[in-house]
Amino acid sequence: MNLAADAALIALDWGTSSLRAYRLDAGGGVLDTRTLPWGIMRLPPPDPASGATSADARFELAFEAACGDWLRRQPGLPVIASGMVGSAQGWREAAYLDVPAELADIGRTLTRVERGAGAPLHIVPGLIERGPLPNVMRGEETQIAGIVAGLPAGQSPDLLVCLPGTHSKWVRVQGQRIVHFDTFMTGEVYAALRDHTILGRTMREGAGFDAAAFAHGGGVAGTPQGRAGVLSTIFSSRTLGLAGRMEASAQADYLSGLLIGHEVASVLALQAGEDGQTRHATDRKPTLVLCGQPELCERYEQVLRHYGAGPAVHAPQATERGLWLMARAAGLLIR
Amino acid sequence: MNLAADAALIALDWGTSSLRAYRLDAGGGVLDTRTLPWGIMRLPPPDPASGATSADARFELAFEAACGDWLRRQPGLPVIASGMVGSAQGWREAAYLDVPAELADIGRTLTRVERGAGAPLHIVPGLIERGPLPNVMRGEETQIAGIVAGLPAGQSPDLLVCLPGTHSKWVRVQGQRIVHFDTFMTGEVYAALRDHTILGRTMREGAGFDAAAFAHGGGVAGTPQGRAGVLSTIFSSRTLGLAGRMEASAQADYLSGLLIGHEVASVLALQAGEDGQTRHATDRKPTLVLCGQPELCERYEQVLRHYGAGPAVHAPQATERGLWLMARAAGLLIR
Repeated sequence: MNLAADAALIALDWGTSSLRAYRLDAGGGVLDTRTLPWGIMRLPPPDPASGATSADARFELAFEAACGDWLRRQPGLPVIASGMVGSAQGWREAAYLDVPAELADIGRTLTRVERGAGAPLHIVPGLIERGPLPNVMRGEETQIAGIVAGLPAGQSPDLLVCLPGTHSKWVRVQGQRIVHFDTFMTGEVYAALRDHTILGRTMREGAGFDAAAFAHGGGVAGTPQGRAGVLSTIFSSRTLGLAGRMEASAQADYLSGLLIGHEVASVLALQAGEDGQTRHATDRKPTLVLCGQPELCERYEQVLRHYGAGPAVHAPQATERGLWLMARAAGLLIR
Repeated sequence: MNLAADAALIALDWGTSSLRAYRLDAGGGVLDTRTLPWGIMRLPPPDPASGATSADARFELAFEAACGDWLRRQPGLPVIASGMVGSAQGWREAAYLDVPAELADIGRTLTRVERGAGAPLHIVPGLIERGPLPNVMRGEETQIAGIVAGLPAGQSPDLLVCLPGTHSKWVRVQGQRIVHFDTFMTGEVYAALRDHTILGRTMREGAGFDAAAFAHGGGVAGTPQGRAGVLSTIFSSRTLGLAGRMEASAQADYLSGLLIGHEVASVLALQAGEDGQTRHATDRKPTLVLCGQPELCERYEQVLRHYGAGPAVHAPQATERGLWLMARAAGLLIR
């Protein structure tokens, strides 16, 4: 944290369940950062006393908590944001760019949200891949830009980037273009199964992460029984307990592994062209990159290893680097 | 409804979300029936005034509502029940019999629940299939007995029975034996996705069942994109809306079709031995039977047809017939 130094940008990584704010200097260095629980699906509660009851006002409350003091200290600082804040459920709906998309084009299409007397907010566009089953991302396009910029000089990127989370994204990057991506709702499905189905009824919280149970679950998709698909295999997190073969405290990590295993096995099968299509023009194997919360990346890496993939390159600080690049491309940075 | 005639049995089909009660005569004919919302996961609310606050007391309240008047009119009537009432979350945990299981053995292993001065309750055992991913059923074993008994005389059953619902069961029957079964949590996963994930946020209730959206979803598992698996394809119920290609009112039926399509496609692939195993000893195709709520069976039949299976034989009244058969095998029936 460097409170004394002047910043050139405030960057917000504003997702569904949390809001992370960065004060960045002119070179993209991080001067300060804070994380708040005010994702777009859980904004600060309405405050009738101040009249802040509309969705707009609740976004303002979260914005103020994230960077109000930074802006008062340095009025005129530009503010950029990426993530679900630009979705139909967000503060303002931002554009989608079509995939394949050039990374350099993304920062040129920001959506400007006026805030009365306050600093305007600039929202990075999301990406859409049209087709029989369309796919969308908001936020990951910014991380990809950060990842590509962070590669060793001279390495031409041919990447398969896994961004695990509520909605995991698997993104194919060739050169400076995003050429394809898939979404897996693994994190959100896990939470819904644990909290809102009978599978949660037999689970008990364990003392910590149960690596053996996680690995057990992670392998299921690759077994003959795994061919029944995830709608069927998830039931085993209950029945292994009923059969006396799994402790209640192991079932949550088992289920987590099982879902991630299905996700990873599907992605690798698609990559291997087992669907009878050559999905991408190149024959050589892309470099595997993992970008996300470290504990979750470790879980994915373990499952990837089980299915013969990896090792993965890790890509820390991709979000803040990406936001800084977008702002620079948009000409927002203070000189 | 025949209130005048004497009954020989009270039969309860007591599941997770509802309780159905039957007054049956000595030949298994239905004299009266009623359906109550008191499944084991939603029992009547505790009644502190009468002291009925324990789980046991709440089961008693539901029992009284289901058949208290029938028993007062004809004291000494035997009472039999099948379903989740015999689970660890039920009134009393009943046994599991191992699969393969002879239908004739099931009724010989009832669990007797004493009710003080009241009539005891007899609970039918569930079935368990051990293996890497164990499977359990409670209630469907009774329906299978009813289905097999209802087949045309002389037809040796070689069946694949689909019992769609919260947890769909697909049961292989050979002769008088249940030889294998699979579970798909399709119904419960649908409800959890609709009510507790972002997919529900863009859904609006439609005027009625949207057959076209359902069929669209049902076909997804069979497309190249479907190979990504259900954790990925479900996201399309949101993205088709974002891309302006699906009305909010169509998304729920689309998602329902999509999940059922993945279930059916998986079952048929397993049946075809695409997993490299010959799962069952017979080569000829089993007769496909559908047993469940008529509207749901119609949905399954439509998807089965899409994937080249069927037509299915429908098996109404299987539950009450099965319960009567179990009671007869146990020697419970009043003569």
